[in-house]
Amino acid sequence: MSAVSPLRPGTASILAVGSELLGTTRLDTNSLYLTGRLEALGISVVRKACVGDGWGDLLAEIPLALSRAPLLVVTGGLGPTDDDRTKEAVAKVFGRALVRDEALLLGLRERFRRRGFEMPKVNEKQADVIEGAVILANTRGSAPGFLVAAGGTVVLLPGVPHEMKAMWVDAVEPLLARGGAPGLHRRTLKIAAVPESVVETLVKPVYAAYPEVPFTILAAPGEVQLQFAARGTPEEATRVLDRIESDFHKALAGEIFGRDEDTLEEVAGKLLRAKSQSLALAESCTGGQLAGRVTDVPGSSDYFLGAAVTYANAAKADLVGVSTATLERHGAVSEETAREMALGARKRFGATIGLSTTGIAGPGGGTPEKPVGTVHIALDAADGTRLHKRLLLPGERSLIRRWTTSTALGMLRKHLLGLADGARR
Amino acid sequence: MSAVSPLRPGTASILAVGSELLGTTRLDTNSLYLTGRLEALGISVVRKACVGDGWGDLLAEIPLALSRAPLLVVTGGLGPTDDDRTKEAVAKVFGRALVRDEALLLGLRERFRRRGFEMPKVNEKQADVIEGAVILANTRGSAPGFLVAAGGTVVLLPGVPHEMKAMWVDAVEPLLARGGAPGLHRRTLKIAAVPESVVETLVKPVYAAYPEVPFTILAAPGEVQLQFAARGTPEEATRVLDRIESDFHKALAGEIFGRDEDTLEEVAGKLLRAKSQSLALAESCTGGQLAGRVTDVPGSSDYFLGAAVTYANAAKADLVGVSTATLERHGAVSEETAREMALGARKRFGATIGLSTTGIAGPGGGTPEKPVGTVHIALDAADGTRLHKRLLLPGERSLIRRWTTSTALGMLRKHLLGLADGARR
Repeated sequence: MSAVSPLRPGTASILAVGSELLGTTRLDTNSLYLTGRLEALGISVVRKACVGDGWGDLLAEIPLALSRAPLLVVTGGLGPTDDDRTKEAVAKVFGRALVRDEALLLGLRERFRRRGFEMPKVNEKQADVIEGAVILANTRGSAPGFLVAAGGTVVLLPGVPHEMKAMWVDAVEPLLARGGAPGLHRRTLKIAAVPESVVETLVKPVYAAYPEVPFTILAAPGEVQLQFAARGTPEEATRVLDRIESDFHKALAGEIFGRDEDTLEEVAGKLLRAKSQSLALAESCTGGQLAGRVTDVPGSSDYFLGAAVTYANAAKADLVGVSTATLERHGAVSEETAREMALGARKRFGATIGLSTTGIAGPGGGTPEKPVGTVHIALDAADGTRLHKRLLLPGERSLIRRWTTSTALGMLRKHLLGLADGARR
Repeated sequence: MSAVSPLRPGTASILAVGSELLGTTRLDTNSLYLTGRLEALGISVVRKACVGDGWGDLLAEIPLALSRAPLLVVTGGLGPTDDDRTKEAVAKVFGRALVRDEALLLGLRERFRRRGFEMPKVNEKQADVIEGAVILANTRGSAPGFLVAAGGTVVLLPGVPHEMKAMWVDAVEPLLARGGAPGLHRRTLKIAAVPESVVETLVKPVYAAYPEVPFTILAAPGEVQLQFAARGTPEEATRVLDRIESDFHKALAGEIFGRDEDTLEEVAGKLLRAKSQSLALAESCTGGQLAGRVTDVPGSSDYFLGAAVTYANAAKADLVGVSTATLERHGAVSEETAREMALGARKRFGATIGLSTTGIAGPGGGTPEKPVGTVHIALDAADGTRLHKRLLLPGERSLIRRWTTSTALGMLRKHLLGLADGARR
């Protein structure tokens, strides 16, 4: 079996070794750290793999990885036990011998002695080094790492995260040639409550304008993320990223609420604070989740007064003053009820803005006229603004609830920015 | 390059497709679920890989994976966008054509129409199917999956977790042959709001009684999980797992609230329904998150009446009747305020049980007397039960809030079961 595409210079792959990484609970988080460090050197990670500690698996996976990228970073399997065989496998793959290093052995014995132990016999094999490899000192643990350059380059690191990170920074980066490319700098833009395919259609011209830029579009519940990256010095990259971001803003007319680590609730909160507004909520179908998002933000008590989670109809009347006539004539899930809830919440808590949700999150409770996914959102502001939006959302309960809270927060954000809403829906 | 060891029957590999999985933030969590399901069928996962959506990468990785295990499960890259090309790559690798399926196309259009959108042109390609492949219906989203059997077997699933899981259970498992080994059956027991080290100490004797069983203890925010596994037919394994579970229950005296997919909010909800009780909440530091958890459960309107999220002090007085004297004398974060909030919520909503939270989630707002992490929880029931708990929680805001909601729900569960609370804290 041969690689379909030729080896790309400036690329790397990561292989995590350990049977525990093939179970149902643990993931290889080391690769996230290594990816960021490699990218900053202008080396991009093109594949990651996890494999157990079986001899046959190791002998197969190392050449497979080297067939895809010229640099391979391996983590794990350098310990003293029988199922630590990464070093042995790399030596075998490159046809190198393992040689006992007496200086390393002395250092290991000394390390144990300082901690008050006699070094166990099993640890002796940690002093075996791959012939011709660069030995990478482990300042945080006992297993040394290795860098073997022979056609491809293989770096062997311990699997323990703090040992791996220290070895990478102290011993590997000084030895690594920078990738051919300048450093890679990433940016993510975020859009609330617009379907992925709608976003995709709107941003197509931006993709087309930057054919060399890698774009990714990602859907999270109630949110779409646009990811892209630029190469260069941090300053050069920022200029390019800013230009692309500005084009996305034009293409999406007010829909982008933030970038990178921003959350919609944070952004809406900052606007509330900046404009000296206060917020109260009345929630039915979202059942407190909207308030939960608003109060996830540290300092939200500056602008958030409270919420009435009026799940029962009696509570809608009692806490936020929805009229019995409205509930009887239009039902709890209706534009009229949503509007009265928003107004009622605003008045009850003495806020400048009231925001409400009422709907059928399912799985039960749907009717032909009001199927599961029917949601009404209303906003009522002291400045006289009255907004309403009706949604018919697909998917299951948790998705409907999340999408509803994102739509409500998006409506709030646009109101505070003076943007029209609804054009995209 | 050829595989060093022969293909092992009863093994599988998993390939996650998506450039976002090669960045610095996202990991492939789908593989954890798939591993558990495959293990139960007696199929063991021998390697996992992540690769971007580049055409050359996909064409290379699919045969590489099939050189290591006869079954390959691929997730991701089935969406409507230009960088979704998994289906195209698998078709190419197997020399199959892609054919437009008119029935699928109609279904897709109808799906969009129901959501109030015209289907974008880009989505049409989701109706293209691999010639000769089994089409796997997507009951939760728009992208169908595929099973292609030709030498090796390749299963293509969407990357969106809930779509992937539903498709696996409904469409893939009925088609898959069992592996050679007896199935591995895992079980997880869950404990709310008890520190990991306390659980660890209490269960040590159970570990010792089953030296052959692999035990793992995992800490999630506000929760500890005990994991273990047994091999055999489902019946054989269940007998072993039940015996171990029973020993854990003895060791942990009432602290285990559920197993596997159980959530604390579900368990508490079932108890409320079974005992014909109704619940109302008054939340301060948890800001709606407790109500959000209660209403995450479908059908929670059977027992949940509502919540007053009284973030501002005025709301504590106005909505749930905390007396101004109490607020002035003891402060909003106090046993007295928590008790009045629980009573007030119960009365206001006409519920049989009122539950309240008030505290300092941080990062600001702490004082020497009431540092960040100080939390009061109270329960007030129509049967005369009055409970209170004071916590001093470590960690950051999100952890403090989560731990508080878990403690409150745990208190509710124990009250409904007639168990004493607080012994373990």
